[in-house]
Amino acid sequence: MEKDVLDTIKGKRKADLVVKNGSFVNVASGEIYDGGVAVTGKYVVAIDNLEDYIGPKTKVIDAKGQYITPGFVDAHIHPESSNLSIKRFAEAIMKHGTTTIMTDIHEIGVVSGLKGIEAVLDEGKQTDLNIYFVVPSHIPFAPNLETSAGQFNSEIITKALEREDAVGLSEIVAPYLTAGFPDLEKSMAQTLKNRQSCQGHLPETVGRDLDYCLASGVTTDHECIKTEEALERVRKGCHLMMREGSAARNLADCVKVITENKVDTTLCSIVTDDLHTLDLVNRGDLDDAMRTAIKCGVDFITAVQMVTINAARAFHLEHNCGALVPGARADICLLDKEKLEVTSTIAGGIEVYNDEGFCIHYEDTVHDPCLMETVKLPSFCKEDLAIKVSKDAKKAKVLGMKTLDWIPITLGQEATLPVKDGIIQCDVKQDMLYIAQVERYGINGNIGKGFIGGFNLKSGAIASSIAHDNHNVIVIGTNLSDMEAALLHCQKMDGGQCIVNDGKVLADVAFPICGLMSDLSAEELAEQKSKMIEETHKLGSKIPIPFMFLSFIGLAAIPSYAITDKGFIDVEKQKIINPVLEVE
Amino acid sequence: MEKDVLDTIKGKRKADLVVKNGSFVNVASGEIYDGGVAVTGKYVVAIDNLEDYIGPKTKVIDAKGQYITPGFVDAHIHPESSNLSIKRFAEAIMKHGTTTIMTDIHEIGVVSGLKGIEAVLDEGKQTDLNIYFVVPSHIPFAPNLETSAGQFNSEIITKALEREDAVGLSEIVAPYLTAGFPDLEKSMAQTLKNRQSCQGHLPETVGRDLDYCLASGVTTDHECIKTEEALERVRKGCHLMMREGSAARNLADCVKVITENKVDTTLCSIVTDDLHTLDLVNRGDLDDAMRTAIKCGVDFITAVQMVTINAARAFHLEHNCGALVPGARADICLLDKEKLEVTSTIAGGIEVYNDEGFCIHYEDTVHDPCLMETVKLPSFCKEDLAIKVSKDAKKAKVLGMKTLDWIPITLGQEATLPVKDGIIQCDVKQDMLYIAQVERYGINGNIGKGFIGGFNLKSGAIASSIAHDNHNVIVIGTNLSDMEAALLHCQKMDGGQCIVNDGKVLADVAFPICGLMSDLSAEELAEQKSKMIEETHKLGSKIPIPFMFLSFIGLAAIPSYAITDKGFIDVEKQKIINPVLEVE
Repeated sequence: MEKDVLDTIKGKRKADLVVKNGSFVNVASGEIYDGGVAVTGKYVVAIDNLEDYIGPKTKVIDAKGQYITPGFVDAHIHPESSNLSIKRFAEAIMKHGTTTIMTDIHEIGVVSGLKGIEAVLDEGKQTDLNIYFVVPSHIPFAPNLETSAGQFNSEIITKALEREDAVGLSEIVAPYLTAGFPDLEKSMAQTLKNRQSCQGHLPETVGRDLDYCLASGVTTDHECIKTEEALERVRKGCHLMMREGSAARNLADCVKVITENKVDTTLCSIVTDDLHTLDLVNRGDLDDAMRTAIKCGVDFITAVQMVTINAARAFHLEHNCGALVPGARADICLLDKEKLEVTSTIAGGIEVYNDEGFCIHYEDTVHDPCLMETVKLPSFCKEDLAIKVSKDAKKAKVLGMKTLDWIPITLGQEATLPVKDGIIQCDVKQDMLYIAQVERYGINGNIGKGFIGGFNLKSGAIASSIAHDNHNVIVIGTNLSDMEAALLHCQKMDGGQCIVNDGKVLADVAFPICGLMSDLSAEELAEQKSKMIEETHKLGSKIPIPFMFLSFIGLAAIPSYAITDKGFIDVEKQKIINPVLEVE
Repeated sequence: MEKDVLDTIKGKRKADLVVKNGSFVNVASGEIYDGGVAVTGKYVVAIDNLEDYIGPKTKVIDAKGQYITPGFVDAHIHPESSNLSIKRFAEAIMKHGTTTIMTDIHEIGVVSGLKGIEAVLDEGKQTDLNIYFVVPSHIPFAPNLETSAGQFNSEIITKALEREDAVGLSEIVAPYLTAGFPDLEKSMAQTLKNRQSCQGHLPETVGRDLDYCLASGVTTDHECIKTEEALERVRKGCHLMMREGSAARNLADCVKVITENKVDTTLCSIVTDDLHTLDLVNRGDLDDAMRTAIKCGVDFITAVQMVTINAARAFHLEHNCGALVPGARADICLLDKEKLEVTSTIAGGIEVYNDEGFCIHYEDTVHDPCLMETVKLPSFCKEDLAIKVSKDAKKAKVLGMKTLDWIPITLGQEATLPVKDGIIQCDVKQDMLYIAQVERYGINGNIGKGFIGGFNLKSGAIASSIAHDNHNVIVIGTNLSDMEAALLHCQKMDGGQCIVNDGKVLADVAFPICGLMSDLSAEELAEQKSKMIEETHKLGSKIPIPFMFLSFIGLAAIPSYAITDKGFIDVEKQKIINPVLEVE
């Protein structure tokens, strides 16, 4: 521990900061009482006898009776989903009280490998956000089914686990574990040997499959959707990260284990997983999720524990963050008692946000070159984006996919489509549109092709350089010309998303950092994104956040089908399949 | 994880053991419901759908409606205090449901160093008890104030921490930490770097001193006596190990933080610290402490959590022990519902005890030579055991000590004693008896001398080769001849305890293992000890367990005074002082 901190405790110097006159929410003891906290440097030095710690140079913040809670801990979050650079992201979430995140920055790894991840972690260290690194257990998700520039193996993972900020292994996928992938087994063995934490990604994993994962060393899951799955996890000692993000909102169902089954809540926390900029700006972060939990019937102190100490416990970090105890990070929120909104955030002893707005601004970063100029599309003509069959064919029966409109899960959908000049045509009436993914790292120039419903575009095309888990450029369209134009516009922006109609770019947003993130502020980005959504809805889509959904269509981990640069994927079988069933 | 376990979960084979038809006490979820547990090898494979796991070779235990709980976890116990060899100790505590211990085997280290500790851990591995090693942070307690054969420094500690079974650093003493002992700081830094746990020994440590310890990395304490100290610990995130052993019983006061302050109980567990064989045989172990907690008003499930999952959490081992979840050790207790007594214990999948008695017996060990023949007293004459002053002195004013009769804490007590032939005489009427400690490792032949009250012997002497924290032979007597005889008898037994009157040994017990432990069973040893206590009481002592108290009089860590081979110790000042104040 730092000398200044210990000297303060010994009484050799006064504290740097004292927050007093609050209703102190003690998440360790589960009590609320009048009090506050004294801070030196980045750390808590005292939670009692505060007046003794105040000297002439001590900054004193009067909480005016508001709740004083620990800063919030998001134990599973991918900052890239916000599309904000890590500095802008830090600002945006700290405004809402989140002061610690556990993250794998997996998406950066897909594009720029461990070097890219380390560059982003370095940028993060220039902020007051407390970032723990959870090493990705696989990059990309399915090496045989997609092309990515970054690739992880157990040697790279072993090296990454040695980082001082590394606290575990991320996104351990149940079927990979039950199938016994040797590289994953090696990485998990190293993680357990290091006394780090194995984090599961266990959608729909129940019964023996869940038992298998837990017995193998997995200790958490954030993919739980149903109450009965949630109960099973807690009963089996699996830390239940109830997800309340943008891509999925599972809190209301998961939280019933507390409100109805009355389980011990120690194993329960709330995470966001993926958080869209618009949600972050308009709705909030864990602060909003905490309020949702309370609305669902969770008592206040338990809800606070779920976004603080419980989340820290999932990584055995409860003495470092998530609780205002001597020696822990001085991460502090003030909450107004009526609306439970964050009025002030202190991160690592620094007041970053208060009722007058931001107290800090992190200078724009010159990003590491490994993060920039990452979109290198092959040369292609628009016909390369569609599926070719025999020139004299008249129609084709295809297996397309259809996305649900509330969660980016796809189902299979067969359709019979016309063939023209040897190219299977999309059919707007049947809502069977073209979809393609174009490899963008200059590696092999692959183009995967198929058909998709659910986006309901009546004309135009949308494209995105964000496409889990390979981040090749994905495009959906009603015609090949607009698709080509959208792809070329993404290339021109060095990555980003756009919507094109009749050859004209209706709206766009540039993501020059790895083709994934922007240096805009959350508010600026939210405005551009709103425009994008508005224009997409004008073209007919009813999905509330169509570009977020688009980014998941390439993920060979989400049922039932996906498109990658290598082709059309049957997720359950983990195989590339031919979408063309019959040609007449 | 072992292949057989994973194969069972996959359904490739059946379980080895199924315990069914019980009231399953799920300490992870805090629920009780009808159920049981399936086991393969040492590990839990399932807690649901048990019938699927039963094959023709599966051993099935019918719990007949009794409670099924995890085996108990004692997160702070010194087995040496029972004076049983580790095998006999394992049998004795497993009978009472304890299946996991965290221990530093510190006393063995005092006598035989790390080599001795490792020999005992090796013996322990021949049992079904789950033993985690918590590396002693110092051996002996006060190297400048006492002589021991084993001595630890940070290099030895670093090596010990690398053991696979090492989970932390033990008994970090508050004043050593606040004084900034460099060796201790190094050991703690290594422990934290290894992500192991720093265990405090923090008697009367409150306010800034407590904050200092916690900020330095200490996360637990087992020395808490008062309710307000207990509350302070929980509020400050310090795991509160409520002690209910033989040397000290603090549960009733500590547990008020739960019954009165209603704190979150996650940070609360029960430990025994030191457990006397007689208590173990007559009263029980953690099972009895759990019943005591319930009598004090703690609800049943919380009380069970305090001796299982909560204790495991203090070391971040909750996925390994203390909970019946897939992949955890298959440590299982059956408790009858009326008396909450342990009727059956399964340890690491092995049924070790049931209502018919022990199912196992561990063969006597040929102990490692480093554990044997450790008592090497210097040659001395009886006058060497007393304090000499000028031949013509008539009386002397001395500072003696007096032990309390309910806790082995000593207070200072001045007395004026007669001098005869230059030797300060004890005075039975004033209850100021001789006390001496004789170095027994053949190192320097030191004899420390003083006076003591509280034992109230009217004649004779008692001696013990157990004397924390150096385990030299300590002797109290009403006359020097009996003291000499008692010492020589201890030597003859290769270590042990005895009571001598008029030159005759009234009762004795041999501790040939390091002068600390015996190969007798708990019951046999308890019988001998009862006899020892009976004889000591006949000679006038009113202390219920006089030899346990005697063993603490040499400990320079317990207020206010102590006697070591180097002399009379002022504990607070950590100095050798002259007990002779004035001579006339």
